[in-house]
Amino acid sequence: MRQTLFGLLCLGLCGQATAETLPLPESLIALNSDNGQALLIEAEARADYFDLAIHFTNQVHPAFCGPASIAMVLNALDVPRPASDMTLGLGMFDQENVFTPATEAVKPRARIERAGLTLDELGRMFEAHSVAASVHHAADSSLEEFRRAAIDSIGDAESFVLVNYLRSSLGQERGGHISPLGAYDAETDRFLILDVTRYKYPPVWVDAAALFDAMNTPDSDNDDRSRGYLLVVR
Amino acid sequence: MRQTLFGLLCLGLCGQATAETLPLPESLIALNSDNGQALLIEAEARADYFDLAIHFTNQVHPAFCGPASIAMVLNALDVPRPASDMTLGLGMFDQENVFTPATEAVKPRARIERAGLTLDELGRMFEAHSVAASVHHAADSSLEEFRRAAIDSIGDAESFVLVNYLRSSLGQERGGHISPLGAYDAETDRFLILDVTRYKYPPVWVDAAALFDAMNTPDSDNDDRSRGYLLVVR
Ligand SMILES: [Ca+2]
Ligand SMILES: [Ca+2]
Ligand SMILES: [Ca+2]
Ligand SMILES: [Ca+2]
Repeated sequence: MRQTLFGLLCLGLCGQATAETLPLPESLIALNSDNGQALLIEAEARADYFDLAIHFTNQVHPAFCGPASIAMVLNALDVPRPASDMTLGLGMFDQENVFTPATEAVKPRARIERAGLTLDELGRMFEAHSVAASVHHAADSSLEEFRRAAIDSIGDAESFVLVNYLRSSLGQERGGHISPLGAYDAETDRFLILDVTRYKYPPVWVDAAALFDAMNTPDSDNDDRSRGYLLVVR
Repeated sequence: MRQTLFGLLCLGLCGQATAETLPLPESLIALNSDNGQALLIEAEARADYFDLAIHFTNQVHPAFCGPASIAMVLNALDVPRPASDMTLGLGMFDQENVFTPATEAVKPRARIERAGLTLDELGRMFEAHSVAASVHHAADSSLEEFRRAAIDSIGDAESFVLVNYLRSSLGQERGGHISPLGAYDAETDRFLILDVTRYKYPPVWVDAAALFDAMNTPDSDNDDRSRGYLLVVR
């Protein structure tokens, strides 16, 4: 996350920023490109895409990739939602009400604003919402195991998969990041990341091996344990 | 909009609200249902769906269906976006920065919070963002003209279509509403409404004639002129 904040800071101060999203490396395919649209239409697993897309959101703070992803996935899981005064009794998880006394005990919001969430903390945040979560560090897993588990989760009606990876390993700006996966295309062996940093990048199709390598990177905020993926079950 | 606020108020006070979205009438098909997914995969026009879906948002105030729709469509149009301090130089339209001195001159935000936007005001809000907008009241149009214009707009790379309709005419709760269209399926003659009131309803596939009838209703906030549709061009 320090790298993320530094990267963003540099973008701001170095005058490279425009009002548009950042250029994508050629290895990544934007969902809204012609090729990216075709991949979704021909995807072998995409059930989760639809439940996530109707709750797709933009992170509201540079360190809130985790809370934004949690809000999306809790809504997609259809677990009971907090009612809102603003919506007069109907509710949605958002990047305010996702913080509860139980999540404060995992990691206080003020510390998340400074340092984001590690993979292990992400799992405990879901458990604080009474959602079962299994943490898989990439270094303890394999490309084959990840691919199989992620495809199964994307295709089933009960679970969702989130990935914690190093952006720079994919050619993006720049640090550790968290977002849910929506779909898988077999011919190209690519997963669709529904990237919650919508001001930086569109959702992208990424090669499974490249994604695994980006997860198999040490996280200095987590005692250099590797990043990885999280399976959550309703 | 008075009807909308009354409907929401009743939902809140009458104890019918749950933490989930409201039940859908059988005539509407949720995008994330099996049938709704298949309609998108087999849709004859859906280019706009992808540009809108990556910017899909939830309205943050009961009267902000218009501002939420405007933010989505301005982002999808890829017009220059306001930079944000929070995102350190990168920008996205949202339900705060969509209000500008130019839009205040069309209708002040405080009045939009009380009464929402009419179809004519919606068009002028886009024009205040230097986006060309053509207003089509349903009473001055026809089902055939609407269907043709909406299909063309959904399929092209330059324009988007927004609809202003009476929810109760479709069996939904309850008043006047605004949202963009994302796709069209020819076999069922249905349009996909990307409903920004995500806490109330998922995106739905609606019969073209039923949608036209819901647009062809008098708006008491607009001198009883009919509701209708808006075409905006980048
Ligand atoms: Ca395929
Ligand atoms: Ca699933
Ligand atoms: Ca079709
Ligand atoms: Ca279009």
